[in-house]
This record gives sequence, structure tokens and C-alpha cells, in this order.
Amino acid sequence: MTTQHDCLALDAADPLAALRGQFSLPAGITYLDGNSLGARPKAALRRAHDVLEAEWGDGLICSWNTAGWYDLPSRLGDKLAPLVGAGKGEVVITDSTSVNLFKALAAAIKLQANHPERAQRRTIVTERDSFPTDIYMAQGIIEWLDRGYTLQLLDSWDQLPAALHDDVAVVMLTHVNYRTGRMFDMPAVTAQAHEAGALMIWDLAHSAGAVEVDLRAAQADFAVGCTYKYLNGGPGAPAFIWVPERHQADFSQPLSGWWAHRQPFAMQASFVPAAGIRRAMCGTQPIASLALIECGLDVFDLVTMAALRRKSLALSDLFIALVEEHCGAHGLELVTPLAHAERGSHVSFSHRHGYAVMQSLIAHGVIGDYREPHVMRFGFTPLYTSYSEVWGAVQTLKRILDEGDYQIDAARGAVT
Amino acid sequence: MTTQHDCLALDAADPLAALRGQFSLPAGITYLDGNSLGARPKAALRRAHDVLEAEWGDGLICSWNTAGWYDLPSRLGDKLAPLVGAGKGEVVITDSTSVNLFKALAAAIKLQANHPERAQRRTIVTERDSFPTDIYMAQGIIEWLDRGYTLQLLDSWDQLPAALHDDVAVVMLTHVNYRTGRMFDMPAVTAQAHEAGALMIWDLAHSAGAVEVDLRAAQADFAVGCTYKYLNGGPGAPAFIWVPERHQADFSQPLSGWWAHRQPFAMQASFVPAAGIRRAMCGTQPIASLALIECGLDVFDLVTMAALRRKSLALSDLFIALVEEHCGAHGLELVTPLAHAERGSHVSFSHRHGYAVMQSLIAHGVIGDYREPHVMRFGFTPLYTSYSEVWGAVQTLKRILDEGDYQIDAARGAVT
Repeated sequence: MTTQHDCLALDAADPLAALRGQFSLPAGITYLDGNSLGARPKAALRRAHDVLEAEWGDGLICSWNTAGWYDLPSRLGDKLAPLVGAGKGEVVITDSTSVNLFKALAAAIKLQANHPERAQRRTIVTERDSFPTDIYMAQGIIEWLDRGYTLQLLDSWDQLPAALHDDVAVVMLTHVNYRTGRMFDMPAVTAQAHEAGALMIWDLAHSAGAVEVDLRAAQADFAVGCTYKYLNGGPGAPAFIWVPERHQADFSQPLSGWWAHRQPFAMQASFVPAAGIRRAMCGTQPIASLALIECGLDVFDLVTMAALRRKSLALSDLFIALVEEHCGAHGLELVTPLAHAERGSHVSFSHRHGYAVMQSLIAHGVIGDYREPHVMRFGFTPLYTSYSEVWGAVQTLKRILDEGDYQIDAARGAVT
Repeated sequence: MTTQHDCLALDAADPLAALRGQFSLPAGITYLDGNSLGARPKAALRRAHDVLEAEWGDGLICSWNTAGWYDLPSRLGDKLAPLVGAGKGEVVITDSTSVNLFKALAAAIKLQANHPERAQRRTIVTERDSFPTDIYMAQGIIEWLDRGYTLQLLDSWDQLPAALHDDVAVVMLTHVNYRTGRMFDMPAVTAQAHEAGALMIWDLAHSAGAVEVDLRAAQADFAVGCTYKYLNGGPGAPAFIWVPERHQADFSQPLSGWWAHRQPFAMQASFVPAAGIRRAMCGTQPIASLALIECGLDVFDLVTMAALRRKSLALSDLFIALVEEHCGAHGLELVTPLAHAERGSHVSFSHRHGYAVMQSLIAHGVIGDYREPHVMRFGFTPLYTSYSEVWGAVQTLKRILDEGDYQIDAARGAVT
């Protein structure tokens, strides 16, 4: 039995506790949705002011050079790189995750189409339970190419080995599942895909800044991810794409805009890709949103991913144990794996009235979110979540469930 | 002969003079580059503060609904629509101009491919002098489709009629040329394209907020444009795409991300496009940059495009006359058409030392920009440029040219 006193003791002994001071969080709220939108670094307010007043207002057009706007995608990419095991010059922060997935998948298809022994492969494998935009983008490419490619949707992650037949060109998976929180063994799955002659794309939306990732050690082929969740880059902030050095010379993608050109200002009438990672870019980037990402990344300079991961698992272990202890009679079903090696940084429970219960939790100051069908998600962001908050959240959940304090016919609104 | 006194009198009589008060501009600078990056509306600082503090910091994930983030692309699109003659529900602000051009061109190609009599057409016509990213994006699509499409680059705008043969599927033109400032007759050219059985895409990067545009009256097919130039939306702010109601049901584009889905939160495993303009979207948008665009659009509520256009032409007429009068001996060549109907809102002069002269102008506080080859651009943004500034800019140019005060071997840096 863990007590509230135990949780307070855990906080007192937490070597990361002071990092919460880097963030602005509203009073009276327990925020367990950093897996959807990370909290605001305090530094972001000052940075926004500088970007608007000194850089845009005073520097005007000159700021593309003098304030380094033009280099932001690659400079911030280099700053993000160590968090996912990428090398310098291998990451740019640009566009949306969806657009970057399109580039990565298009490039992977092309690499295979140019391969002497794999040119005929026509299957792209992913999970039915992938975040939908990944599936939609793949459908978009397939329909457009109209060259016989098909998307094979796995109904369960353990179908993967059997699905790796000799027609598979690309495997595209979300490392940590957005709904269940289940995490793939990146090195093992990548090796399986490669053994079958397929290329491996990872979506790190729920991984970057949340779990330890080593893309280079895993020998992955391409990766994309998001900066507005665990990296605290700001609402809808531009996403990232990783192209390892070994694939850069052959990386070709159809969104060949001027920011991907070898000499964007030479105004040539023919596209020639930039030599390095910039060929993964496309058009001009939204500087205000892009610049704020640095404030989120700066916080990661203060701590190791190993330390964050330890606290993340401690928080989610505690949450799971407390929910089972205090709310065990209410038909909650744990969706997230118990094994640490298979768990990301959020925990999901399904409940037949999950939507209504989550609405009630939010009304009582505990912000998690809801995903169809029936799934309540609780994100644990070790940069700013305390053990006492986990205790408090479970007590609120218990009270709501004990008292039936939720409207089961509540109209469903959109929650991103 | 126009005197400085005349210019002061023009300012005193200018009914739009007070609009400059809406913008923050550095002291001692004459800013003639609003055609590249618009000045900062004063309101943007307050708006950024609200987005960061109240919406992101306090509202957190709930702000997707409570602060209206999710609807920003279409709400701001509706606000922009009247400036380009678009209808309600026909514009979204999203992604970059390059990405939007890709969507529009892909959709146009598909429409033609599904047309009973035009399915075999394989030529896409544009100008060699289009802004390069438009050409590059077309090259990207063509190479990817690999179905025999070719890009025909016109060497001069007057080659268009002859180029409209019966293999042309799509004509894609920049309404106001980024380098020369030359403006096409949108209704006439659109009619010519239609008569030849082609679809017509307009890039309004240098038109929106600068000249009067009526897309619906011209019966254009698709349009894209930029918000960070004359619309003063902020550096690299998301771009817009226009899909007229008559094409929306058949609008299909390969970047089919979740924000384009009919029910993005139903988490379905198959893409079904949204009914209206949202199908032109793709992924999650950068909210901080997106929200600031509204501050730029709000200024246009205070004035008509007709009044802005009158002042724009008066400013550029004055500039051309003063340059010819005061700098006529220095080999400057006017690149921009004199006819009002063929002129946008910037004026370009070529000079064999154009790059060096522009660097010297900037060093002396007159900010224009330079475009290869030899072209000095001067943008006239009637929201905040005065007649006296035009006078002062020409006097500075005259002094630089008279005294040879420029380094002709100056290293060339990148200027966006």
C-alpha cells in the first residue's frame, strides 16, 4: 500500500523536481496531457517577445540572416538530434508530422524502386492502430502513384513477423502507440524488417523526449516526429524528420520546394537538391512557432534522457498501482503493457463510460484525454509531473467512479 | 518636377496616412521590402502574449476547442477571402505556399485526368521567370507521377497564347511576378486557358493585399498565396489555398492528412475527405504563427483594396518618376511595366552593380532587396509607406550612384 505520505516523500527525494520551475502551469490543475500538448516553458514568453519585437519588428527582412531564421530548421534539428540518437546534420525541424511522413515514405518507396532486387515490391506494412494520419498519408501516396502499391494494416503488433513477406517494400510504425502507450522494440523490429529486405520508418510522435531512442544504433532508415508533445515546443509547432547520413545522397522526395534546393537564392529554373539534410525541407517555415521550440529543447540540456525515463516509469508504475488499488472495483481495464520495455510515457485505461469519466476528471482539474474507443489516456511528463499529483489524480478518479459523478450521455466534443 | 515639398503635401493629404500607426517600424529606416516580409502590426505583440500565456500556458490542451485553435485555418481563411475575391468556405490558411501549390497542381492534374476529353493532356505550362519554388514543385509532381507529364517553361509572358495547344492540362502562373513586378490580366488569361481546355492556377504571393484580385469573377480554378508579405502575417507565416466551391467536391490531393479528414477524431483507418475546404488541409498547424496572421488581416478591415491600390500606384509612379529624374544618368533600367494594368506593388530597376548598390542602400537605411540577375526591388506598401519616404529613398539612391558609394566586389549573401 502506497500512501499519500509516500508520494510526498518521493517528491522530496526527486532529483528532477526542480525542473518543474522551468514551466508555467496553471494553479489547481493536474496536467496529465503533456503527451498531447506539452506545457509552456517559461522562457517561451520572453523568446516570443524577442522574435516579434527585435527580430520581426526592428530587424525586418534582415533577420533572415542576422537573427538566423534561415538556419533555424537545421540548427534546432541538431539540438534535437541527441534526444533520438541522430547525428549532427541528420535532422531538420520543418512542416507537419504528416507532411514529413509523406516525404519519408516517398523517399523509401523510391529507394526500393531503384534497388536491383527490390524494385517489384509493392506492399507497405503498418498497424491499423497507427495514428490515423500516418495511414492516411500512406493511402494518399499509394493512390497517387497508382502503381500497384497496397497498404497492409496489421490488426495486432504480433502479426508483424508473419507479415514480413518478400513483397514488403516499407514497414512504417509508430514507436509508442498514441492510444495504448505500447512501445515497440526498435532495434529488434528494425532488424526484422531489414532481414526481410524492407526499409523501416519510425514515427516518434510519442517517443521524442519521452523515452530513450537511438535511431542510429537501431540502424533505422527514416524517422519523423513531433515537437509539441513531450518536447514542449508549442501548439502545432513544426515537426521533425530524420534522414541518416547513409541515405542522404539518395534521398529524393516529391515536395521539392526552394528550401530544399542547393542554391535557393540563385533562382534557377531547375530543381537541384541540397547536399545534406536540407533536401528534406520544402517551403518557408513559420518562424514564430519554430523559434519557440528552442525553449522546450533547452530544458533537455539540464537532464539526461535516462534520468527522465526512470522517473517516467516510476510515475506510470505508481499510477497503475494506485488505480488498481483504489479504483479496482470499477471495471477499468489497463490497456498499456506492464513490462517497462513495452511501455511509453503514458498510461491508458479503457472504461465503458471512458469519455464521460474523462470529462468529469477535466471538470475536477485533472486533465488527461480520451481516444476512441473507450480509452482514457494519462500522460506522465517527468519534467513537470510530481508523484503527489499522481496520488491526487487517482483520488479524484476514485471519487468520480465511487459517486458515479459523470454524465454518460455527455455529448462528445473534439479533443486533440 | 516633383519636389520634396510636393511629397510632404501628398502625405498631408493622404487619407491612409494614419494606418501607419497600426505598425511598428524602426526609427530611421525607410522600409521598401514589405513585398518580401511585411512589417509587424503593433497588435501582434499583445496577441502573441495572449496565445502563449492564456491559451497555451493556462488553457493547455483545452485551447484546441476553447480558444478556437482548431478552426483558425478556416476562420482566418474566411477573413482573408474578400481580399482576393474568394467566397466564404473557400480559403484555408495552412502549410507553406510550396506545399499548397503541390496540392493545387495535383488536384488540377487529377481533375483533367478524370475529364472525358482531356485525360490524355500532358503539358503543364508556366513561366521560366516564375518564382522558382513553383517550378520546383511542378517538377516534383511530374517526376513522381512518371506518366509522361512535361513542364513547358515560357521564356516570355507573351508566348502564352501560342503555348495553349491542345495538350495543355494546366496553366500555372504567378499573378504578379516576384522579380519584375509585372502583373497578368487575370480574367483574360484565365479565359484563354479555359478556351484551350486547360485549368488555371494562380500564385498570389505578390498580389494578396497588394492589388485588387477577384478570383471568382475571373473564374479561376485554384489559387495559392502567402500571408507574410503584403498581409503582414509574420515571418514565414502559413500560406493560403483557395478552392472554389464548384471544384470542392472533386478536389483530391495526395497530402491527405488527418486535418483533411471528414471526422479527424473518429480515428478511422481509412481516409475520407472533409466535405468543404478543409480537404485542402493536411496536418496540425503552427498555432503561434497562425494566430498572428489575424493581426495583419484586421488592418485590412480599416480600408478598401481600391484605396490601397490607388495609393500603391501613386507611390510607385512617384518612385519611377523621381528615379528617372534624379538618377537618370546612371544606367538604371526600369524592369517593371509602366502601364498600371500591368504593374503590381513593387518596382524593379536593373543595374549592372545592382547587388552592391542595394547593399549600400541598406547600409544607408533604405531597405529594398535584390534578385538575380542585377535586379533591385523596391516594394511599396501603402499601409505604411509615405510619399516623403519615397523622396528620401531616391535621394539616397542618387547620392550612392553619384558618389559611386558601393563595393562592386561585395560578397553576395542570402537575402530572402
